[in-house]
Amino acid sequence: MRRSRAAVVATALLAGGASLASQSPATPTRQALLDDLVVANRILANEGVVDGYGHVSVRNPADPNRYFLARAGAPALVTAADIVEYDLDSQATGGSATGYTERFIHGEIYRARPDVTAVVHCHCLDVIPFAAAKVPLRPMYHMGYFIGEGVPVFDIRDSAGITDMLVSTPVLGQALARTLGSHSAALMRGHGAVVVADSLHVVVAKAYYLNVNARLQSEAIQLRGSGVTYLNPDEAKKAVQTYERSWEFWKSRLPR
Amino acid sequence: MRRSRAAVVATALLAGGASLASQSPATPTRQALLDDLVVANRILANEGVVDGYGHVSVRNPADPNRYFLARAGAPALVTAADIVEYDLDSQATGGSATGYTERFIHGEIYRARPDVTAVVHCHCLDVIPFAAAKVPLRPMYHMGYFIGEGVPVFDIRDSAGITDMLVSTPVLGQALARTLGSHSAALMRGHGAVVVADSLHVVVAKAYYLNVNARLQSEAIQLRGSGVTYLNPDEAKKAVQTYERSWEFWKSRLPR
Amino acid sequence: MRRSRAAVVATALLAGGASLASQSPATPTRQALLDDLVVANRILANEGVVDGYGHVSVRNPADPNRYFLARAGAPALVTAADIVEYDLDSQATGGSATGYTERFIHGEIYRARPDVTAVVHCHCLDVIPFAAAKVPLRPMYHMGYFIGEGVPVFDIRDSAGITDMLVSTPVLGQALARTLGSHSAALMRGHGAVVVADSLHVVVAKAYYLNVNARLQSEAIQLRGSGVTYLNPDEAKKAVQTYERSWEFWKSRLPR
Amino acid sequence: MRRSRAAVVATALLAGGASLASQSPATPTRQALLDDLVVANRILANEGVVDGYGHVSVRNPADPNRYFLARAGAPALVTAADIVEYDLDSQATGGSATGYTERFIHGEIYRARPDVTAVVHCHCLDVIPFAAAKVPLRPMYHMGYFIGEGVPVFDIRDSAGITDMLVSTPVLGQALARTLGSHSAALMRGHGAVVVADSLHVVVAKAYYLNVNARLQSEAIQLRGSGVTYLNPDEAKKAVQTYERSWEFWKSRLPR
Repeated sequence: MRRSRAAVVATALLAGGASLASQSPATPTRQALLDDLVVANRILANEGVVDGYGHVSVRNPADPNRYFLARAGAPALVTAADIVEYDLDSQATGGSATGYTERFIHGEIYRARPDVTAVVHCHCLDVIPFAAAKVPLRPMYHMGYFIGEGVPVFDIRDSAGITDMLVSTPVLGQALARTLGSHSAALMRGHGAVVVADSLHVVVAKAYYLNVNARLQSEAIQLRGSGVTYLNPDEAKKAVQTYERSWEFWKSRLPR
Repeated sequence: MRRSRAAVVATALLAGGASLASQSPATPTRQALLDDLVVANRILANEGVVDGYGHVSVRNPADPNRYFLARAGAPALVTAADIVEYDLDSQATGGSATGYTERFIHGEIYRARPDVTAVVHCHCLDVIPFAAAKVPLRPMYHMGYFIGEGVPVFDIRDSAGITDMLVSTPVLGQALARTLGSHSAALMRGHGAVVVADSLHVVVAKAYYLNVNARLQSEAIQLRGSGVTYLNPDEAKKAVQTYERSWEFWKSRLPR
Repeated sequence: MRRSRAAVVATALLAGGASLASQSPATPTRQALLDDLVVANRILANEGVVDGYGHVSVRNPADPNRYFLARAGAPALVTAADIVEYDLDSQATGGSATGYTERFIHGEIYRARPDVTAVVHCHCLDVIPFAAAKVPLRPMYHMGYFIGEGVPVFDIRDSAGITDMLVSTPVLGQALARTLGSHSAALMRGHGAVVVADSLHVVVAKAYYLNVNARLQSEAIQLRGSGVTYLNPDEAKKAVQTYERSWEFWKSRLPR
Repeated sequence: MRRSRAAVVATALLAGGASLASQSPATPTRQALLDDLVVANRILANEGVVDGYGHVSVRNPADPNRYFLARAGAPALVTAADIVEYDLDSQATGGSATGYTERFIHGEIYRARPDVTAVVHCHCLDVIPFAAAKVPLRPMYHMGYFIGEGVPVFDIRDSAGITDMLVSTPVLGQALARTLGSHSAALMRGHGAVVVADSLHVVVAKAYYLNVNARLQSEAIQLRGSGVTYLNPDEAKKAVQTYERSWEFWKSRLPR
C-alpha cells in the first residue's frame, strides 16, 4: 500500500522516456534518472547521511519547472514507484501521494537557482553542533573544497519566530533559498542542512563530505595546536571534485 | 529452555485477542502489540540503544493495571514467547518466568503516570557522562524536542544511600517515578536512563534520539564557540514528532 | 596447515573429558570449556576488544597448574584445534605449535593469583590514552563496577628499561602480575591492558566494559561540568555483575 | 567495460609468472603478488583506511624500475584485471587504461627510496586534523612504533603555491618524496597521507595503525592529564612489528 499510489506517476514518466533519450547523449532517460534517484536515497541512508528522515530530489531535465522527489517515507525504503513529480510550487503534477512536509525546500531552491539540478535535505549529525555553537564550517581538505565558498546558517526564527522548526511553506522555503544564496550548502540551526549541486551524484557526495569535513574540523579544533590551517580560498576554488569514484563505491556497498 | 516457560503466558494472551480486536479500530490486537514489543526490543538492540542489558515494556490496552515485559534476557533475543504480563506491583500475572530485577521501574511508572503507555530502561551510553558531569541535557534539534521539557537526574543515593545501583524494589521504583515527574525522560546517575511515551513506536524513538541529542550537545560544547544555541522552549513544544518514519526504517534494518 | 598441528593436543584433551564430567555438575567438560574459549576469542574480536592481536586463556579446571590458550594467531580465526595446554612456566605440555610471545602474561598471573580462572590481554584502544595521560580510570557506571578497585598502570620501563614493549619472558610476566596485584585489571603503558576474572564469561565482559567505561569517562571529562561523579567505592563493591546476558547477546552476534 | 581494458596487461604479467617463480622461494609469483595487491586494495577499503579514493601499489620484484597499481577506480572494486604496470616516470608500460592522477606519488617514491616495496596514499581521516592543527604525530603504542621516526608534513603550497592540492606531476611527486625522506609516513596538509614499507602486508598495516595511533593521541590530548607519555624513541626502534596476524584477520573480514 505504501508503495502503490505513486506507481501511476512513475509509469507515466517511464512512458515519456523515449523522447527524452533523443535529446542529447549526455541527458539520461527519465527512467535512468529515477533509478539514480532511488540509488541516491539509498546511498544517503546506507552511508549515514540521513536516517529515517531527510530527502533528495532531482530537477526534471525535460522541464526545468518540475522536479522529482519521493513521497513521504524513509529514504532507505524508497523505490521507483514512490517517486512523484512536483512543480516549483511543490504541488504534485499527478497522483495523490502524501508529500514530505518540507518539499518546499526543493521547489523554492529550484526556482531561485537555475544552476541547481539536485537538492539534499538532511539532519546531518556532524554539522548540527557547528550551527549551534556558531563556529563557521571551513574546508579541511580537498574533498570538502566547496566549503571554501562559505556555509551560511539559516535560522528559521529570523524569518518566522517560534515555529515547529520545519520549512513547511513556500515562504519559509524562499527564506531558506535566500540564505543559501549562491552557495553549495547551508546549515539549518537546530535542524540540519541543505546541499545543492548540478547533479545527483555530486549532491550526494557534497552532503557526505560536508559531514566528514565537519568531523575533521571538530577534531582539529579539539587538538588545540597553534591554530588550524584550512584550505586557502584559492586552493578551495581549484580543488573541484567530480566524486564519481565515490558514487561507484557507495553504490557497491548497498545491501543486496 | 530459555524460551519455553513464558510461552504459556503468551498463548493465553493470544487466546484473549479476539475480544480485544473488537474494542476499537485504533487498538491493536494483543498479538499485534506483543509482536510490536518484540520488534521494539530488537530495534533498541540493533540501533545500539541497549546492549545485553536494558528493557522495554508496553501497557496492556485492555487493562491499564497490567503491562507486558519480556522475562529476564538480552533484548536482541526476545521472542513473543518470552513476554510476560505484570500487574502494577510488577508481579507476573501467570507463569513463573524469572523477571528483570528492575521491572519495578516499569510498574511504578505506569502507576504514577496514567498517560504513559510504554517505558524503556537503557544504559544509553551517550547520556551517562551528562549525569556524571552534572551538565543538563538540552534540546539540540527538533528530533530531540522533548528534551526541552528538561531531563531530571535520578540519584539512587538520595533515596537509598549505598546500593548496588539497581532499581530492584517498589520503593526505589516509586522514587524514580517521582524524579521523572511529568517528563519524557530521566537520567539515572551511574547507570543509564528511563524514557516514557504514549506508544511503543514513540518510546523507542525518544530513547534513540535522547542519545543522539546527547552526542550532538557534547560535540557542540567541545567546539568552544561563543555559547551553544539550543531549541527555544517554545520551539521545543511545537516541534513534536511522531517518528513513524524512524520505526519503519529501523524495522527494515533488523537482521533477517 | 595453520590449524593442524595443535589438533593433536585438542584431541588428547577431548579424550580426557569423560572423567572430568564426573567431577561436579558445575564443572564444564574439557570440550565444553575449549568450545567456550573459542567463543571467547571470537566475541572479543567481533566486539572490537581485540583486533588481529590480543589473547584470552582459561585455567584447566582439572589441574590448576595448567591453562589453555590458542597458539599464535588472530583471535577471530581461532578454532578448537588451535588450543594448546600450557604449564605455569608457559611451556606447552605437548605438541609444538608456535605460542604467543606474550603467553607469560597468562602463566605468571595464574601462578600469582589462585583465584583467577581466566585472563585477557588486549590492546583495548579506549584505555591506552588513560595510561599515557596518567588519568586514573574510575567507575562511571555499574557495568564497570570492578574499576572501583582501582586499575594500576604497568610501565615495562620500570622493570626492564628500554624494551620492545612485549611481556615476553617469565620475569616480565611476574612484574606485570605484581602490578596487577589483587585487582581485576591493569593497564600497560603504550601497549594495552590485562584483565582477569573467575570465569571466561566474566573476563570477556570485564574487558569489554573496561573499554566502554573509559570512553564514558573521557566524554564526561570533556563535558567540563562541575566535576565528575564516579561510583562511590561502596557502591562499586555492591554493584557486582555476572554479565551472563552479555555473553548470550554477544554470542548471538557472531558471524554465521 | 570498467574492468576490461587493463585485462590485457594483467594477462601479460601472468604469462611472465613462470620464470619469476623460479627466482627464489621467497619471491612470490607475479600472479600471487597481483592477487595480494587486490586484497590490499580491498582491505584498505573494508577497514576504512580509504573510501572511494586512495590507492596502493607494489614494486615489481622482477624489475625494480616498475611498479603495479590499479587503474583509476575505487579501491573496494579493484580486480586483478585492473592492475597496470608503470615505469618510474609513472607511464603505463602497456595498454591504455586511465591512471590515477596522483600515480606520480608512487613512481617518485620508488625512484627516491630503493628500500621501499609498497606505497599507500590515503585520505586517512584521523591524521588530517593533525596536519591542520600542526600537532606532530607521536607513537602512542607499540603497534604505531614507526611513528617514532617522526612523521613529516608535506605542504604542497611550499612547492607549488596555489594548486588543486593533487600530486599530479613528477615534480610534485619528487617534492613529496623529499619531504618523506627516509620516514615510513608523511602527512599531506589538507589532503591525507602517504605510507611506505618493504612489503604490501606491512604498508597496509602501517596505514591502518597510523590512523589508529592518531585517534589515540587525540584522545590522550583531550583527557588533559599531566602531559602525555609517548613511546620512548628507543622503545619505538625496538618495537618493530610484522603485523602478519593483522593481514590474516583483515583478509578474513572481506565481504564474500
